[in-house]
Amino acid sequence: MDLNSDLGEGFGVWRLGDDDALLTIVTSANVACGFHAGDPFTMRRVSDLAGDRGVRVGAQVGYRDLAGFGRRRIEVDVAELTDELRYQIGALSAFGPVGYVKPHGALYNTAAVEPGHASAVVAAASSFGLPVLCQPGSVLYRLADEAGLRVVAEGFADRGYRPDGRLVSRAEAGALVTDVEAVAARAVRMAVDGVVEAVDGTVVAMPVESLCVHGDTPGAVAMATAVRDALVAAGVKVAPFVA
Amino acid sequence: MDLNSDLGEGFGVWRLGDDDALLTIVTSANVACGFHAGDPFTMRRVSDLAGDRGVRVGAQVGYRDLAGFGRRRIEVDVAELTDELRYQIGALSAFGPVGYVKPHGALYNTAAVEPGHASAVVAAASSFGLPVLCQPGSVLYRLADEAGLRVVAEGFADRGYRPDGRLVSRAEAGALVTDVEAVAARAVRMAVDGVVEAVDGTVVAMPVESLCVHGDTPGAVAMATAVRDALVAAGVKVAPFVA
Amino acid sequence: MDLNSDLGEGFGVWRLGDDDALLTIVTSANVACGFHAGDPFTMRRVSDLAGDRGVRVGAQVGYRDLAGFGRRRIEVDVAELTDELRYQIGALSAFGPVGYVKPHGALYNTAAVEPGHASAVVAAASSFGLPVLCQPGSVLYRLADEAGLRVVAEGFADRGYRPDGRLVSRAEAGALVTDVEAVAARAVRMAVDGVVEAVDGTVVAMPVESLCVHGDTPGAVAMATAVRDALVAAGVKVAPFVA
Amino acid sequence: MDLNSDLGEGFGVWRLGDDDALLTIVTSANVACGFHAGDPFTMRRVSDLAGDRGVRVGAQVGYRDLAGFGRRRIEVDVAELTDELRYQIGALSAFGPVGYVKPHGALYNTAAVEPGHASAVVAAASSFGLPVLCQPGSVLYRLADEAGLRVVAEGFADRGYRPDGRLVSRAEAGALVTDVEAVAARAVRMAVDGVVEAVDGTVVAMPVESLCVHGDTPGAVAMATAVRDALVAAGVKVAPFVA
Repeated sequence: MDLNSDLGEGFGVWRLGDDDALLTIVTSANVACGFHAGDPFTMRRVSDLAGDRGVRVGAQVGYRDLAGFGRRRIEVDVAELTDELRYQIGALSAFGPVGYVKPHGALYNTAAVEPGHASAVVAAASSFGLPVLCQPGSVLYRLADEAGLRVVAEGFADRGYRPDGRLVSRAEAGALVTDVEAVAARAVRMAVDGVVEAVDGTVVAMPVESLCVHGDTPGAVAMATAVRDALVAAGVKVAPFVA
Repeated sequence: MDLNSDLGEGFGVWRLGDDDALLTIVTSANVACGFHAGDPFTMRRVSDLAGDRGVRVGAQVGYRDLAGFGRRRIEVDVAELTDELRYQIGALSAFGPVGYVKPHGALYNTAAVEPGHASAVVAAASSFGLPVLCQPGSVLYRLADEAGLRVVAEGFADRGYRPDGRLVSRAEAGALVTDVEAVAARAVRMAVDGVVEAVDGTVVAMPVESLCVHGDTPGAVAMATAVRDALVAAGVKVAPFVA
Repeated sequence: MDLNSDLGEGFGVWRLGDDDALLTIVTSANVACGFHAGDPFTMRRVSDLAGDRGVRVGAQVGYRDLAGFGRRRIEVDVAELTDELRYQIGALSAFGPVGYVKPHGALYNTAAVEPGHASAVVAAASSFGLPVLCQPGSVLYRLADEAGLRVVAEGFADRGYRPDGRLVSRAEAGALVTDVEAVAARAVRMAVDGVVEAVDGTVVAMPVESLCVHGDTPGAVAMATAVRDALVAAGVKVAPFVA
Repeated sequence: MDLNSDLGEGFGVWRLGDDDALLTIVTSANVACGFHAGDPFTMRRVSDLAGDRGVRVGAQVGYRDLAGFGRRRIEVDVAELTDELRYQIGALSAFGPVGYVKPHGALYNTAAVEPGHASAVVAAASSFGLPVLCQPGSVLYRLADEAGLRVVAEGFADRGYRPDGRLVSRAEAGALVTDVEAVAARAVRMAVDGVVEAVDGTVVAMPVESLCVHGDTPGAVAMATAVRDALVAAGVKVAPFVA
C-alpha cells in the first residue's frame, strides 16, 4: 500500500504542515507546484529530501489561485488549464523525477465530476506519460483510464464514505473520522480486504492502491504515523505504488 | 549566424511584439517563462510554432517581476534565484525541447557584472546541461565557460559599442543605431569579419555566433527582416547556432 | 447622457486600448484596480488625466485574476470577495475621488444573475457610499437598489437585446452591432426615447443613464466618437450622470 | 510610550504571528497591505479587531514581493514606487482609519539610507497627510521631517545599538538581545531616560516615541508582554503616540 500526502504547501516565508516529519512516513509526496502553493525553493528542498528517503514525488497541480490556496473553483478554459497544468508539471520536473499527477483542492473536486477540467488533467498527464492519482469512481478516473493512462485509486481512511462509494460531503454529518484508532483500522481494512464501511454501515468495495494522509492539521503527523504503524503491524507492505 | 529574439512576452490578454512575424525571421526564440512575462498558453503556442518552423527555443529567464517586466533588479538570494531559474526552464520544457538559456532584462545586466546572480544562471543552465546565450566579455560568459557550459556569444547590430567591446549605456549618446541600412551593414560585418565599429571609430573584435534582433518596438519586424536579408545577400548562412 | 468606458486596463509594460483618446470622449472612466488589470502607476496616471478633463472616475472591480483578465468566474466566498472589492476601491481612492463602482468581466456577468457575488458588490459599494453602475433588470441592480444605493442603469448601443431586455449572448447571432451608424442611431434612441430595438424587432424600454462604449478593439475610438457626436447632434447633453 | 508591531502578515491560507494576542498588547498595529504580505480578508479582520481594542492602525507598506516577504530589495523607479505605496495605503484605508505609515523589510532598510526610495515613502505618506514611523537618524526620518510630516521615532529594545545610534547589523555579534528581562529593562530605559546602552557600553541618546515589538518568532508574545508590563510597572503610560 502506498501512502500519499500533500507536501511543499508553503509559499515564501509561510509554512504549512510538517514536511520533514511526513517525509519519514509517506511513500508518495504530492508536491505543490507554485500556482496555488509552493515555490521553487520549497519544491527543490522537498524534492531533494524525498529523493534521499526513497519517497516518490508527484505533481500536486491546481488552479492559479495563491490567494485561495486552490480551493476556489475557477472557470478557466480547458485548453488554457491544460497548459497551466503542463507548466506546473514541467516546473516540478526541474528538481527531480516526477512520478505522477494529483490535482489539488477545487481542481480535485471539479475534475471528479466535470469532464472538461478532468480532460485537462488527463491531457497534461498524458503529455508527460504520467499516472494519475485520484478517486475511484470519479470522472477523472474514468477519463484517465480511457486515455490509456495508469490510474492509481486512492482512499481516505479519515473520511466518511456513502454507500455508493463517494465521500460524504464535508457539510454533512459523518464526513470526518477523527478517532486515531478508528482511522488506522479503516486504513488496514482498505489495505487488507479492499473494503470500507460506509456511514450507513454498508460495507463497500474500495480497492485502492494508495491512502491519502493529511499533513496540515494539528495531530496530522500522529495520525499518519498511526496509519502507517497499523498497516505494518497488519503485515501490509508500505511502498510506493507500482508505476 | 544565428538570429535570436525575445518572444512570447505577452501575459494573459496582453500582447507584446509580433511573435508570428518574428518566427519567420529568427532561428532562435527566447521564450519568456512566466516570471517577468509569458504565460503557459503563450509558451505552448510559441513553442509549437517554433517547432513547426525549425526555430530553436530557448528559456528567457528573469526575475519574478511581472509588474516590472523583469527590468527591476531584485536582490534575491543566489540559492533562491537558482531555484527560480530552474523552475522557469523546467516549465518551458513542458512544451517542447529547450535548447539554451538567456537571461532577460535586469537579470541580463546584473549577471553581466555580478558573480552572484551570474552563478545562479550558470547553476540553473548546468542542471539541464544547456548552453548559455550572453554577451562576450561579461561575468556570466566567463563563469559559464569556467563551468564547462557551451557559451554562445551574441552581438547587437543596433547598439553602439565602446572601444573595450562593451555596449554604450542607454543613457549615453550613441547607444542606439536606428538606421536600418547601417544596422544591416553592422550585422554583416560582425558575421563576415567578426568585428564591429565602436562609437569612436575603433574597429573592435566581436566574434559572435548569434545576433539579437528586437521584436517589441515599432519597425522591429522590418529591421529584423533587413538584417536577415542582408546576411543572406552577403552569403552568410542563417541557422541556429551549433549546440 | 453619461458615456462610460473601461480604462487603465494595462499592466506593467503592457497596454490595452487608447486611454488618452477615450478620455476626450467619455464622461465616466471605469478604471481597473489591479486585481484583473491595472497597476498603481497606470491608475494614478489615468486618474490624473481624468481629473484634468472633468471625467468622473469609477472603480472597475473584478476577480483576482490577472492571468485571465477577470474573465474567469471564480467561486470565491462572498465575505472574501467583499473584502477584495473594498480593497480595490480603497486602492483607487488613493489617486483621487472615486465616483462609482462597476464590476468587470466575469464578475459583471455573475453579479447580474447570482445574489451572492452581487451582494458582495453591493456591500463593497455601500461601505464607501458609492453608486453602482450596472445593467437594468440584473440581480445586482435589484440588490443595490434594495440596499438604498444610487443605481445607474447602463446600456450598450453595440450589443443586441432580447425582447425581455437582456443582452443577446455573445455565442448567438445578433449579439453584436458593428455598423457605426447603426450603433450611433441606437445610442441616440436610447438617450432620447429610452428604448432599444430588440433582435426580433420588438421595441423595448431601456431607460438608461449611461452608455458603455468599448475601448479595446480596433475601431473602438472611432465608434465611441461617432456615438458621442450623434448624441450631441441630437441635442443630448453628454455629461457625467447625476450622483 | 507607543508599542508597535507588525500584524496581518499572513496571506490566504498562511498565517504568521499571533495577531489576536498582540492586539491585546500593542497600541499601534502595522498592518501589511497585500504587496509583500497581507490580503484583504486579513486586513479587514485585523482592522476591525484593532478598532474594537483602541489600537491604532498603520500601513505597513513594502515592495511588491510576495515571494520574498518584502525582504528583497527591488530597484523600482521612484515614481512607480510612490504609486505602489499610495495604492497600498489607499487599500488599507478601505477597512478603517489609517493612522500612519511604516515601511517594511527591505524598504525599511533602503529608505533608511537612500534618498530615492525614502522620498517615495515621504511622497506617499504626504498624499494622505500621514505621520511616518521610522528610525531616528535615518534618511527617511530626515526627509519626512523636511517635508513637514509628523515623524515618529521608534526604538528596538531587543536590538543592539552602535555608539552612533545605529542598529548593529544582523550579521554581527550583539545584533540581538534575547534575554527577556534585559529587553524589558532596555525598553524602560528608553521610555524613562531616553537613552540606550550601546554594544560598547556607551550610553546613547535614543528619544523614541514608539517601541517596536516583534510578533513572528517563538516567544514573541511573551517578550512583548514583558516589555509592556515593565513599562507599566515603571509608571510609563502605554498609549498610541500623539498624532
